[in-house]
Amino acid sequence: MNLWGGRFSEKMNPAAWKLNASISFDQRLAVQDVRGSLAWARALEKADVLTSNEYAQICAGLETVKSEFEDGSFAFQESDEDIHTAVERRLGEITGPVAGKLHTGRSRNDQVVTDFRLWMLDALPGLDTALWGMQSALVERAGVDEGILMPGYTHLQRAQPILLSHWWLSHFWPMQRDRERLQDLRGRVSILPLGCGALAGTPFPVNRTALAADLGFAAPAPNSLDAVSDRDFAAEFLFFAALTGVHLSKLAEAVVLFTTPEFGFFELSDAFTTGSSLMPQKKNPDVFELARGKAGTLTGLLAGLLATLKGLPSTYDKDLQEDKVSIFTAHDSLQALLPVLAGALHSLTVYPERMRAGIDAGMLATDLADYVVGRGVPFRQAHALAGQAVQLAGKFGKNLDTLTLEEYRSLSPVFGPDVYNVFDPQKSIARRSAIGGTAPEAVAAQLQQAKALLSQKAEDYH
Amino acid sequence: MNLWGGRFSEKMNPAAWKLNASISFDQRLAVQDVRGSLAWARALEKADVLTSNEYAQICAGLETVKSEFEDGSFAFQESDEDIHTAVERRLGEITGPVAGKLHTGRSRNDQVVTDFRLWMLDALPGLDTALWGMQSALVERAGVDEGILMPGYTHLQRAQPILLSHWWLSHFWPMQRDRERLQDLRGRVSILPLGCGALAGTPFPVNRTALAADLGFAAPAPNSLDAVSDRDFAAEFLFFAALTGVHLSKLAEAVVLFTTPEFGFFELSDAFTTGSSLMPQKKNPDVFELARGKAGTLTGLLAGLLATLKGLPSTYDKDLQEDKVSIFTAHDSLQALLPVLAGALHSLTVYPERMRAGIDAGMLATDLADYVVGRGVPFRQAHALAGQAVQLAGKFGKNLDTLTLEEYRSLSPVFGPDVYNVFDPQKSIARRSAIGGTAPEAVAAQLQQAKALLSQKAEDYH
Amino acid sequence: MNLWGGRFSEKMNPAAWKLNASISFDQRLAVQDVRGSLAWARALEKADVLTSNEYAQICAGLETVKSEFEDGSFAFQESDEDIHTAVERRLGEITGPVAGKLHTGRSRNDQVVTDFRLWMLDALPGLDTALWGMQSALVERAGVDEGILMPGYTHLQRAQPILLSHWWLSHFWPMQRDRERLQDLRGRVSILPLGCGALAGTPFPVNRTALAADLGFAAPAPNSLDAVSDRDFAAEFLFFAALTGVHLSKLAEAVVLFTTPEFGFFELSDAFTTGSSLMPQKKNPDVFELARGKAGTLTGLLAGLLATLKGLPSTYDKDLQEDKVSIFTAHDSLQALLPVLAGALHSLTVYPERMRAGIDAGMLATDLADYVVGRGVPFRQAHALAGQAVQLAGKFGKNLDTLTLEEYRSLSPVFGPDVYNVFDPQKSIARRSAIGGTAPEAVAAQLQQAKALLSQKAEDYH
Amino acid sequence: MNLWGGRFSEKMNPAAWKLNASISFDQRLAVQDVRGSLAWARALEKADVLTSNEYAQICAGLETVKSEFEDGSFAFQESDEDIHTAVERRLGEITGPVAGKLHTGRSRNDQVVTDFRLWMLDALPGLDTALWGMQSALVERAGVDEGILMPGYTHLQRAQPILLSHWWLSHFWPMQRDRERLQDLRGRVSILPLGCGALAGTPFPVNRTALAADLGFAAPAPNSLDAVSDRDFAAEFLFFAALTGVHLSKLAEAVVLFTTPEFGFFELSDAFTTGSSLMPQKKNPDVFELARGKAGTLTGLLAGLLATLKGLPSTYDKDLQEDKVSIFTAHDSLQALLPVLAGALHSLTVYPERMRAGIDAGMLATDLADYVVGRGVPFRQAHALAGQAVQLAGKFGKNLDTLTLEEYRSLSPVFGPDVYNVFDPQKSIARRSAIGGTAPEAVAAQLQQAKALLSQKAEDYH
Repeated sequence: MNLWGGRFSEKMNPAAWKLNASISFDQRLAVQDVRGSLAWARALEKADVLTSNEYAQICAGLETVKSEFEDGSFAFQESDEDIHTAVERRLGEITGPVAGKLHTGRSRNDQVVTDFRLWMLDALPGLDTALWGMQSALVERAGVDEGILMPGYTHLQRAQPILLSHWWLSHFWPMQRDRERLQDLRGRVSILPLGCGALAGTPFPVNRTALAADLGFAAPAPNSLDAVSDRDFAAEFLFFAALTGVHLSKLAEAVVLFTTPEFGFFELSDAFTTGSSLMPQKKNPDVFELARGKAGTLTGLLAGLLATLKGLPSTYDKDLQEDKVSIFTAHDSLQALLPVLAGALHSLTVYPERMRAGIDAGMLATDLADYVVGRGVPFRQAHALAGQAVQLAGKFGKNLDTLTLEEYRSLSPVFGPDVYNVFDPQKSIARRSAIGGTAPEAVAAQLQQAKALLSQKAEDYH
Repeated sequence: MNLWGGRFSEKMNPAAWKLNASISFDQRLAVQDVRGSLAWARALEKADVLTSNEYAQICAGLETVKSEFEDGSFAFQESDEDIHTAVERRLGEITGPVAGKLHTGRSRNDQVVTDFRLWMLDALPGLDTALWGMQSALVERAGVDEGILMPGYTHLQRAQPILLSHWWLSHFWPMQRDRERLQDLRGRVSILPLGCGALAGTPFPVNRTALAADLGFAAPAPNSLDAVSDRDFAAEFLFFAALTGVHLSKLAEAVVLFTTPEFGFFELSDAFTTGSSLMPQKKNPDVFELARGKAGTLTGLLAGLLATLKGLPSTYDKDLQEDKVSIFTAHDSLQALLPVLAGALHSLTVYPERMRAGIDAGMLATDLADYVVGRGVPFRQAHALAGQAVQLAGKFGKNLDTLTLEEYRSLSPVFGPDVYNVFDPQKSIARRSAIGGTAPEAVAAQLQQAKALLSQKAEDYH
Repeated sequence: MNLWGGRFSEKMNPAAWKLNASISFDQRLAVQDVRGSLAWARALEKADVLTSNEYAQICAGLETVKSEFEDGSFAFQESDEDIHTAVERRLGEITGPVAGKLHTGRSRNDQVVTDFRLWMLDALPGLDTALWGMQSALVERAGVDEGILMPGYTHLQRAQPILLSHWWLSHFWPMQRDRERLQDLRGRVSILPLGCGALAGTPFPVNRTALAADLGFAAPAPNSLDAVSDRDFAAEFLFFAALTGVHLSKLAEAVVLFTTPEFGFFELSDAFTTGSSLMPQKKNPDVFELARGKAGTLTGLLAGLLATLKGLPSTYDKDLQEDKVSIFTAHDSLQALLPVLAGALHSLTVYPERMRAGIDAGMLATDLADYVVGRGVPFRQAHALAGQAVQLAGKFGKNLDTLTLEEYRSLSPVFGPDVYNVFDPQKSIARRSAIGGTAPEAVAAQLQQAKALLSQKAEDYH
Repeated sequence: MNLWGGRFSEKMNPAAWKLNASISFDQRLAVQDVRGSLAWARALEKADVLTSNEYAQICAGLETVKSEFEDGSFAFQESDEDIHTAVERRLGEITGPVAGKLHTGRSRNDQVVTDFRLWMLDALPGLDTALWGMQSALVERAGVDEGILMPGYTHLQRAQPILLSHWWLSHFWPMQRDRERLQDLRGRVSILPLGCGALAGTPFPVNRTALAADLGFAAPAPNSLDAVSDRDFAAEFLFFAALTGVHLSKLAEAVVLFTTPEFGFFELSDAFTTGSSLMPQKKNPDVFELARGKAGTLTGLLAGLLATLKGLPSTYDKDLQEDKVSIFTAHDSLQALLPVLAGALHSLTVYPERMRAGIDAGMLATDLADYVVGRGVPFRQAHALAGQAVQLAGKFGKNLDTLTLEEYRSLSPVFGPDVYNVFDPQKSIARRSAIGGTAPEAVAAQLQQAKALLSQKAEDYH
């Protein structure tokens, strides 16, 4: 069965049929398709297009179809071009000719994108929860690892001492932004296309506002031509996914680095690592590498859909069928990655002494310059003096805290015996107490802020 | 002059210097850099790091620098590595050594991204206005072209009759979504990095909340490590730009088609077309083709930045310097395109009779099926009957409205003499009166809704 | 079973296992994995690492595994992490402990990319054949449609008359370049990684040159570190696929346009079109729209893999696992599209009279300018004169061939009564006889050249 | 002046003019435009379209224009829409009306892409030389650093000992493939579009084969419609550039890692590093980070152009104007990066003892398994035994070479006192002597192969 044979005198070429058919991937919309059809039948009944009796038959039939999807007994047929055809075909087998009334005033153009938006509305809370789970793991680590010092890096060169809790939380905020974007997206997904027909609207007196409410949408789409072709929500979803992927890739890169023997800051648990088929000693951070790699793939899915959308001439074009596989792939990648990464963070071991050992006095050169500033020297000269101290130390094979006072004073009389107080990383950290800084009290406040966000958002969905 | 020479014993290789220097493009941040520095100086004074006198000197110096940028008299030097260096170098020339106090507790890492966010906060209203201008042109056309019928297309095949006003408005809503995204983005741009230092926060008692307010930011960034490396706003800007580009490309594709002699629906004014160096008769829709082409380029800028961000290891890495050229390019493309396209729409000529001629009776086959539905036949069979009528008409070289009643009744006795009432496109359009449909009253309501959005939003910025 | 458990004290987390496992997609390499293993066993025997007897057992076992893949009886187990594990596991079940000797001196790092290259070497001829098929369809059309005139377009505006055969052939050459790129790629795929171990080379005296020859590779990879991580061939494949996709998208765009009623140049056969679930009259060029849409998706696959590869730190990283799904998807898209598009071209109907009707005298304005040039006027002025004639004609509601001689002479005395000879499109076409031009003899020569390329290349693979 | 005003009654809108004009970037084609025009004038003379005298005047005029470009005295005017217009305008000023004869039978459509291909043919040898320079630096390092051992990594975990020379050469081969791709591309660039007119060919009897030879092209384009729109060479150039960028990014990532104090394998010279405006001790590998970051940008340029090309309807469309900025940007990025990176490699300091210290006995676990294999145990069990030894060592806080023989024998009686011979990394390396392996003689052979490629290729261009 197909839904459109009337005017055609020749059957479709089998290879063309196969290329054209979308059932292999849009069957994932089965539940949403039935849900949308139930609401459409209700709307048709209210508009007196279906009698109560016809509605009841269709409704009962669709419920049967739905339960067949749910218990896995639904049997697809080779002739099912897409999920809409499959559902209507099966409905017809169950109810007889009345099934042919369901598609009145509706088109697959408005139907498929309604299904797709319903699917996304169903999927977004799960993604939010998965992100929430990652954030929770980060917040947990920030709590557990309180007070641990580590070297902070810029350009991957040792820069200044920081708190490990501060570092963990630096990965919390990007995911908070991801969740905000998800929330913004949700509003734009929640626009109902159903009732727009193929392109021009439906000629039956359907109440689209009621229909939107029935299906849980915020509002009906305001323009039928736009409604059947708008895939902004799909592109925006892929952007959300790609940027989330980028955030995970940055965390992943750091974890991969920090679990090398050279850094030695972290060790992953056996449960989240793999070995080598050749090298018996290997313990590899595969799950983080996959997170990093999948960020690239996610970026490509976005670039691909945008390229597909570019330059389309009108309302519905078949090109739009390319939207679904990309979104499903992106969704599944994030849902596979996030819980695993959260679990890996939860179970990793931190080596505080390795981190502490990474903090050498050279990392306090800025504090040395600030010390000189404290003695009235403009920062720019203070910076130069501290730079010369670094150079001098390098020349003598020393570090900043082992240069003698005379050596310091050979650079400038501004240095006094209290210069050695500078080289305590705890104090360096404590000085950075402005909002967002790495001082313990600033980090504690930040942690509170993060926890408040977690509790507040979590109840929305759980 | 550079800001970091103290510890180095060898000058930078000239080619490396050139590769590294960003002054060729970040000089565009000049005004924002001075503004940020003024606010930073104020914050340092409030924190008792600068005396009132020092602050006054720095302030006066920066105002001079600013006026030099404004009147074009600022002279860059080859040794100016970036805009920050240029400003501080010039400040020093004006004020002497006190200039060296400005950079106290600040890093170029927090400075550059503050400048960049300030620039974007300055740029967003202009983009909103440009989008508003495009929307206004569309709304204007929807008003001017009221009552004109045209063929609606799906798959670029004639589908159903629609109103031209409805078609114009179908391009209004995507831009409304673009403006919403811009608004969402604005909130995420409005987070202040300044006061985060190189990565760990500033050790001076700066009030970052006050500093944020001083510079017009909503809040200070909550984590210094994240603050200096967060380029989400840049990626989100590029996504906004790419999707806006896609929307323009779809409008452009339609205008290119509709100005062909084959369609002949529109004619562009001479002021917005170009000719050929070889073919004297040509009148080409170049500006729309450029809109379509630039959508591809914009997509690439987004894909490029995401790829650059992928897998970065820590806080600030120099890779981030790739952010600016892409954003400037995207911004300038949209600002070049939007007013031109709006002007071209405003000045184009519509040929209603060509559009009307494109509506043949075949486009009312759905209405024919609906007529059969009205006689109690399920839609699925009605659709098949209408399809057979199309086939029959094709066989006889007729159209649906010239088949005889006998011919109709040869298909089914359901057809009566009133079947010919179906083939009035005005009536077909009028039937599609549900929200979002193409019926005149639905379009009028839609136009009101669009106008309300225009007036409401416009006052925010104008 | 997994291949690396020795040093691990805890089982892998099930979600991490699932994320990590590649069997769901790399089972497609089953035949290649067995083939590679057979060759490796032979190499180990020649290197005296396996005895003849051991080799014979392993060989027989692998042949059994292979036949199980071929007849579909191979039973994957949930614990099969990847195809390599599955094959070795099954081999062990068949042969007992001697199976454990197969992996001597080999790693999955060199094994998987050997399998992947073998798969690609197997797949490339099929893609070449599919492209050849498209080219053949184009050449066929160029022959069948000989002598048909059509309007040529630039900027989608009517430009100059051309031959339809010339137009068909304009889509032949891009595919010829695609085939050249495929051929160039083939050489770079044909480099053997096997024998490079995990990264450092194999410690057993394997003759890699003989091994390469045994497996049909041109040469062994010259550097083991590079060999296990080089995915250039995958990126290059995706570039080939994306650009081929772009070529198909351009053809598709043209066919979509030319099958509109407004153009009416082509009609697709029923076997290669689809209908509408709502609109009974519709006949949609879905397969061409899918070709156009998939070009976007293919572009994204390329952008994604490049982003994944960017910045990888060393030899083998798990990120590389992202390579396979993208390549398989790209390959299958092209193999699904090309035969269908070729079939659709073969079966489409051309309407020469619609094309001829699209050629108006305005399209000969260049010839008019050339006529003026023939009278000694520099082209630049001749172009201006012809432009004025176009304007004059427009003003009088005439066309170039209906302006009177007086009207022409009002512009310039250079016009004579022979000016009307200009407006014969056949003559216009015939004048363009330089190589590559649209004159019949130039097109005939071009067609010969195309046919020669087809015959010459086809024998390589068929 | 513009080249096409004849039929237009209204001047172009200034903003539209600015959007449309390409002179800001295509002036880079100035020299090629003149060169192409000189050849076209010669072709017209040979075709008797120009007299010898006219040709001589035009030729002299063009030589003057050329010298003005060369000495920088050429004055662009605001009305110069593009480089072709600028050249013809200036030629007219110099020669008078005869200049108007130059454009006979030519269009900007064939002209611009001829210029662009000429530019690329000029640019490719320089890129090859820059790549050759990088390869030379790598080969130099492989020679200088002969005999130095380092830990090899997979998954960024220590895997097996390798030679540093082997590692350097692992970056040679990707660039060799880049150069091969450049060479393949060259052939496809070397196809002449000139003489194809706007789309249909030239009506004047120009010998395009001679014209191609005159301009250094291999052959004239075989189809005029394809010739004016084919931008495959631009896309292929961007793919070349993006993949080269990816190769540089991988080298860059490694150098960034290896110059951290944690790894400490390399130190960059002051001439190729930068400092921090805040932190006096910093020495940052900016140039490598820029290489890594620009790989992302280059990828985006490719994705952008492919998206732009997707779905274009016909021959020349203005969208194609987007090609040039992307190619120029990509070219300039590589030309800026390659010499700097080569210089940085040349001048970096290697710390062999840090590398040697990174090789612990655990990295010889594969060799331990191979030792067990040598005693007749299948590799799979040998691997498990070695894994248990790693676990045992971990449990006792030992390493593989400090486990006692009894401890080994507690795992299996297969271990003998000679097991300790395994733990010599020199021997481990020496065993990997098959082609492509890390053994000294294999690396020496590889180095010879690399040098041969360098010498052979270099003479083509130098």
